[in-house]
Parts: sequence; structure tokens; C-alpha cells
Amino acid sequence: MTVATSPPPAIILIRPQLGANIGACARAMLNFGLTDLRLVSPRDGWPNPDAGPSASGADDVLANAQLFDSVAGAVADLHFVYATTFRSRALTRPVVTPPQAAAEIRARPLPSGLMFGPERSGLETDDLAVAHAVLTVPVNPDFGSLNLGQAVLLASYEWFKAGDDTPAAVFANYAGPAAHADLERLIVAVEAELETAEYFKRGVAATNARRTLRNLLTRPAFSDEEVRTLRGVFRTLAQGRRKRGDAVD
Amino acid sequence: MTVATSPPPAIILIRPQLGANIGACARAMLNFGLTDLRLVSPRDGWPNPDAGPSASGADDVLANAQLFDSVAGAVADLHFVYATTFRSRALTRPVVTPPQAAAEIRARPLPSGLMFGPERSGLETDDLAVAHAVLTVPVNPDFGSLNLGQAVLLASYEWFKAGDDTPAAVFANYAGPAAHADLERLIVAVEAELETAEYFKRGVAATNARRTLRNLLTRPAFSDEEVRTLRGVFRTLAQGRRKRGDAVD
Repeated sequence: MTVATSPPPAIILIRPQLGANIGACARAMLNFGLTDLRLVSPRDGWPNPDAGPSASGADDVLANAQLFDSVAGAVADLHFVYATTFRSRALTRPVVTPPQAAAEIRARPLPSGLMFGPERSGLETDDLAVAHAVLTVPVNPDFGSLNLGQAVLLASYEWFKAGDDTPAAVFANYAGPAAHADLERLIVAVEAELETAEYFKRGVAATNARRTLRNLLTRPAFSDEEVRTLRGVFRTLAQGRRKRGDAVD
Repeated sequence: MTVATSPPPAIILIRPQLGANIGACARAMLNFGLTDLRLVSPRDGWPNPDAGPSASGADDVLANAQLFDSVAGAVADLHFVYATTFRSRALTRPVVTPPQAAAEIRARPLPSGLMFGPERSGLETDDLAVAHAVLTVPVNPDFGSLNLGQAVLLASYEWFKAGDDTPAAVFANYAGPAAHADLERLIVAVEAELETAEYFKRGVAATNARRTLRNLLTRPAFSDEEVRTLRGVFRTLAQGRRKRGDAVD
């Protein structure tokens, strides 16, 4: 369920180390419509000139980033906080997948936030205390090192997707199947040419060959244009055969 | 539907430009259990020393990467090919979302592949000719520049997720709610202390206050340990009050 007024979540980076990673997070956020970036005690201070290039144009997200010196301060206005971790912790909290977190955030009228720890070490136990739930991305258990930008990307992507109504599959540039009568004329014409060329054997074999031909021309659901193209192709091939003089008619 | 023998998809990078991006792709693949990397005419040749550092340990994926000089050669053994694009093309192909592609690949017993174009320009129309479907990631229409590593990450993540049985939410380190009788003893004990301290007013107000107290102690579904902790906390507070001499009993 999506609440019409559900606010987009804040992304809170706790003691991030590299400016380039902060920039990559800003880019990943804006790719999926998030703009509320909060930084708690970034190692190299703020602003950081290394952030701009990797933000690749998400400059407004960086310019509007808020700086805090405590985790509690950064989440003060938030009503539900997720802590992203990749290790299990001795914490009595629900552990949710990214799509589950996204669905919860979309169903909540009050503002939520997603916390991410420093690149090397992840969130400390004390950072986790303010969180209401733990967000863990399922990964290859033998190679689970997601970087900070990737973790923010996946969380942002799932949030966007949870509010996106793109159909799972659409058929681009395809007018839909031709009317049956037009396909039938194609099949009849091809069969007539093949008959002339003595393609069909006698008896059951001929019946099966006709059925196979009909099925392979029907299954793709050719459009009007494709049916017309195929008629032209078959006609041209048949004329070529006749011109070469090997026609029997 | 997942086919038990469904092969993991190949990741095919068409004319990738930067070695660092090839490494990032290898890392993203291995994070989500993919290992079949194919490179078609990488701009700076192959192997490329810039790929290693950004692979962050996914060295086997790089070492086993296959090099091709044509798109057709790279997909020769594949039975279904997705082309990742972010612009719509005049191509009569189904356009699918990442989770739809993942579900299709998981349901298919024959090998599939996911093609990605060069960083700057994306796939050319001629590259798309071998594809059976187009994969498009829904993004912020005002800021849709996913980089190559991010695109590979999202496709790999969705493939992994489609075969992953991590529950959407589990309650970590929580033994489940205490038996009602234990919670009831807590409530009765607190009410008795509050009675003594003349917390409850008379009449309807008292009834409502008792109901509120009971509800707020019931809703969190406290575990045995949490109920025991709360009993200790309430008892200690009441004793402190008695010691200060403001008890009425």
C-alpha cells in the first residue's frame, strides 16, 4: 500500500570516509528521486572537493546535504530509522530486505531514514541504538562486500521501484498481431508456391509439414507489416525459382 | 517459477571504455553470484591493469573473462539475449523491467545473457539486432544517468533476489512474546504500585488510564526477558519513591 503523502526517506551517512563515495551516494540517490542527504561527522570534513566529480551532476543533493555531529541529531525529526548492516548483530530488531523496507516506507505517512555506516567498518553498535529496524541486502555469502555507493543505490532503487508503475513488460514498436484473414492469405499463398515446387511429400508427411508451417507462421503473432514483408519475401523467392527455369508450372 | 537447472546469465560488455568500470562490473557480478563475464572489443585492450583494483577481490571473474571481437560471437551459445538500454529504440522487442528479466531467466532452462553498451554512448542499433528483449531500469526521468557498474549491479541483484529465499522480515534476537500470565503479573504489579501512589483519578478517567497502560504494555509483545526487566525497573522506581518518604502506605 502506498500512502499518497509518504515522504521520501532521508539517506544518513555515518562517518563516511571518502568524498568520492559521498558523491557516488548523491548520484545514486538522485537516480531514484531521493534528495535528503545527511552526513554525520564525515572523516575529511564538509564540504569535500572529492564529492563533486563522482556525483556526476547530482550537485544539488551535495549542496543541500546537512551536516551533523551526532547520530541522534541527524535522525531527530525522523519517525522510523533503518540501519543498513551486513553482519548480524545482537539487537532485538526486525531484519528486513530492501523491498520490504521500501514497502514499509511507502506505506508510512511519517518521515523515515536509512542509515549507512563508514566504508571500512560499517555501523557501530551504538549507532544502531536509534534504529527501529535493520536493513540487510541479501548477497553472495562468499563475496558480500558491497561498497557504500552500491548499498545506497540498491536501497534507493527499491524505494523508487515501490512507487513506480512501469509495466513489467511492454512490447515496443509492435502494432499487435495481424487479423487472422491476412495471416491466412500468407499461409495459403506460401502453401500454393510450395505445392508448385513439390515441397510436400504424400500422405501423413504432407499433412504434418503443412501443420508445422502453419504453426511456425502463427506463433510469432506477426503484425500487418511483418505479414506484408513475408508475403513479399516468399513471392520473390518463388519468382527467382521460376526465373531460373526450374519451375514445373 | 524457478527452473532447478536454470543457468546464471552471462554479462556481456560491448566496447567498454574504462578498465575501472570493467572491474566494478566484475565485483557487482560476484556480489550476486554471477561469474560469466564477456568483453567485446574493450577500448583499451585486455587484460587491463585498471580493472583489478575496482574488482575488489573479484579477480577470478576478471581472469576468466572471455574476449570477443564481435557481438554475434559473444552471444553465439546463448539462447536468449537482453539488451540494456535507457532510451527507447525503434526495435520490435519486448521492453522489460529488471525483475521481469530476472524471473524470465530463472524460468528458462537454456542460457541467457545480458548485454551492456559502452559507458558514454550505450548500445548501437546494430548491437541490438541480436537481442530478443530490451531491459530498461526505471529511473528518475530528470536524472537517469546510471553508470555501467550500477547497471550491472542492479541486473545482477535482481537475478540473485529472484532465487533468494531470505524472508522479507525476521525478528532478530527476539524470543517472541512472553506468556500472557507473565505479562499480566507485570501489569497487576504496576497497577498496584500506581494505586498506592494515587496515580489513578476516580471514575471514567481511572478506567481509561488503566486501559491505556494495559494497551501500551501489551502492544510491543515484550519477551520474557523484557517483561522481567520492566518488572525490575518499575519495582526499583517504586522503592525509590518509598525511600524518599513520599509513600502513602
